[in-house]
Amino acid sequence: MTNRDINYHKDSFILNQPGQKGRVAALNASHQYSLPLEDISLPAAVIKQSALRNNLDWMQRFAQQHGVHLCPHGKTTMTPDFFQQQLDHGAWGITVATPAQAEVAALAGAQRIIMANQLVGRTNMAIIANLIREHDIEFFCCADSLSNLDQLDTFFQQQSVNLNVLLEYGVEGGRCGCRTAEAMLELADAIQGMPALTLRGIEVYEGVIHGDNAEQHIRHFLTETLDMTVSLAMDGLIEGKPIVTGAGSAWYDVVAETFAFLDRCIAVIRPGCYAIHDTGIYFDAQNKVMARAHTNKGREHQGKACDLGGDLHSALEVWAYVISRPEPNKLVVGMGKRDVAFDAGLPIAERGYRNGKPISVQGLTATAVMDQHTFITVSEESGIDVGDVIAFSTSHPCLTFDKWRYIAMCDDNYVVRHWVETCF
Amino acid sequence: MTNRDINYHKDSFILNQPGQKGRVAALNASHQYSLPLEDISLPAAVIKQSALRNNLDWMQRFAQQHGVHLCPHGKTTMTPDFFQQQLDHGAWGITVATPAQAEVAALAGAQRIIMANQLVGRTNMAIIANLIREHDIEFFCCADSLSNLDQLDTFFQQQSVNLNVLLEYGVEGGRCGCRTAEAMLELADAIQGMPALTLRGIEVYEGVIHGDNAEQHIRHFLTETLDMTVSLAMDGLIEGKPIVTGAGSAWYDVVAETFAFLDRCIAVIRPGCYAIHDTGIYFDAQNKVMARAHTNKGREHQGKACDLGGDLHSALEVWAYVISRPEPNKLVVGMGKRDVAFDAGLPIAERGYRNGKPISVQGLTATAVMDQHTFITVSEESGIDVGDVIAFSTSHPCLTFDKWRYIAMCDDNYVVRHWVETCF
Repeated sequence: MTNRDINYHKDSFILNQPGQKGRVAALNASHQYSLPLEDISLPAAVIKQSALRNNLDWMQRFAQQHGVHLCPHGKTTMTPDFFQQQLDHGAWGITVATPAQAEVAALAGAQRIIMANQLVGRTNMAIIANLIREHDIEFFCCADSLSNLDQLDTFFQQQSVNLNVLLEYGVEGGRCGCRTAEAMLELADAIQGMPALTLRGIEVYEGVIHGDNAEQHIRHFLTETLDMTVSLAMDGLIEGKPIVTGAGSAWYDVVAETFAFLDRCIAVIRPGCYAIHDTGIYFDAQNKVMARAHTNKGREHQGKACDLGGDLHSALEVWAYVISRPEPNKLVVGMGKRDVAFDAGLPIAERGYRNGKPISVQGLTATAVMDQHTFITVSEESGIDVGDVIAFSTSHPCLTFDKWRYIAMCDDNYVVRHWVETCF
Repeated sequence: MTNRDINYHKDSFILNQPGQKGRVAALNASHQYSLPLEDISLPAAVIKQSALRNNLDWMQRFAQQHGVHLCPHGKTTMTPDFFQQQLDHGAWGITVATPAQAEVAALAGAQRIIMANQLVGRTNMAIIANLIREHDIEFFCCADSLSNLDQLDTFFQQQSVNLNVLLEYGVEGGRCGCRTAEAMLELADAIQGMPALTLRGIEVYEGVIHGDNAEQHIRHFLTETLDMTVSLAMDGLIEGKPIVTGAGSAWYDVVAETFAFLDRCIAVIRPGCYAIHDTGIYFDAQNKVMARAHTNKGREHQGKACDLGGDLHSALEVWAYVISRPEPNKLVVGMGKRDVAFDAGLPIAERGYRNGKPISVQGLTATAVMDQHTFITVSEESGIDVGDVIAFSTSHPCLTFDKWRYIAMCDDNYVVRHWVETCF
């Protein structure tokens, strides 16, 4: 993996490989590359280091305030450098969605990995068996069917490797997960007869619960989950202190409150997008977290998000050029579906620059995104012209990240000194 | 670029790097990896070599039948191995959308590169100036504004490099391009006073013309474009034999017919998706190409698509596992927005396998795609279970490709012997 090489040179890693989006054309002696002064090829994906650090710190303190462990979902960024920063901030482990992602997390130094997903297929199982054998990690995957448990037990017995399993509990109309307590118990019982498998706890993803009474349903679902975990443990069906884990980036507060300061369980939350945040769906979700905190302040384990001070900040931008103004009200920007997420709102123009100086981007609205272009409406009076630079925020971060192999890390003056590599 | 290393080992390049989607877990002596037998980690993106070869051959013959040059748009695949195959089949050059893509095309051996887009920004211009200096290539970019021409002339004069420019002509409500013949003439005149720039012809992208009379409007637009090219050339404003170029993958037939066997121009078509094709929007577009060929057979330069024999074939699939069947009518597949395009219809289940043997996927319909999961409805009677393998076709190919760093190349038995690297 080139990732290891890059970490080695981390402090001076300058992106000047041919064919790479967002690279510099020539090295300079200072190793300082200004985005407003156009030292970097655009479009470029840019992370503001201070915002990232703020977010990592904020969520770690949030987890600590609730006495829960933070095991951030790595799928958002798939950036080993960020995994390391999350672990350095005190993360309990890294969450992933696939065996390939688990390998990246292990190579980045995670010693606990939750694959919050089913482990299915011979080669996928082989990748995980190798990982457990070769790295000193505690690995957990989810299961919600007898078929899958049988397949796992057969494979891991052959490999003489033990596999930790979390049973997944879900909701009707949701994603994976058993739909009833009876089905959960049946699987927990079955695992007792499977020599290669060890049941370690229960996993849920509450983010699939929607609708008007979502919060109430989620609280009920989480309480059920917790009761079930304790009950299975008391029945002797879970090995060791049982793990109970949930939380995406929208309802992590409700999960942390429900699982706060448990004596009898290891409680783990798994938000991912918090590290990058955005100006769209996660901005809205975080506003709701803060509103709930204000409303519930004073109740046991609730309202902590207000007490922490500060908030999450949007850390990711895509910078691009106006390449055409073919009609008085239309700009075409050199940034497209190849560069930016487009499934949760279109990119938002945050700031503009000409010759390094700020220019107004007021009134600019993205109306469509093609593979390599974004259309923007603009008032006829606007002075925006071809060659102007625009920094866009985006939602949601996962789908912008996976468009980029290298992300520029900038300071608060938008000066870049190094790039980080993504591993999608 | 690792791409060069990979080409060197091309015949034996087996994907076994940790953290890579679609890799093998262990090398085997035969270097043959069967998809139905689950030798490869899923999800995996897979190209059927015979379908790719068929498509490259078909479109090359199509261009030859019309006496036009084929300069395939490389943005679809960004796969140097495929660029080389396209050049080996007789492509005139490679089309790209950005300076980073132009570098990849040059490193893959393209000696003519059309950047069918505006070249904007100091570092982007520096990348192209270096490319022209260091590689023996003919490079062309588009322009549609005086601002851009001024910026280009200033930069390339400083670099003592000459830049070939194609003026872009467009339509009201479309993308880039001058909206009137007067604006085109004004820019052509301006270029005469710009020492670093050479006007070489006119570029259009007819794919932005939609509506009920799209074909008629496109034919009119192309005729106008051709007249304008000849007129600018006769006025001495274009250097050398003028280039006239258009065509995405939907209307390439109409462009080829309009530009067929020109004496006074170099006519170039630039379809890209044809190489991969699909079972969605480009399948529909190609059916319309064939229908037009039947209707117009016998007219001058028309109806050739029928005479060629054969047709384009869908070459790309994403293979994935059923990871959960949480409700009798619902399957969850381990493939998401991180793996497959979702902006032009959802993935279509083409074939299924269990223990290497075909199983029916009839009645399976994708209803939603999340970051790492696809939801499929299934009849209660279906025997599909966790661990079953499903091969999905997808639309459109550009946005599936950019999710993958390596693509498995399979034979007609779905056996993979090597992988190709993408360069997004």
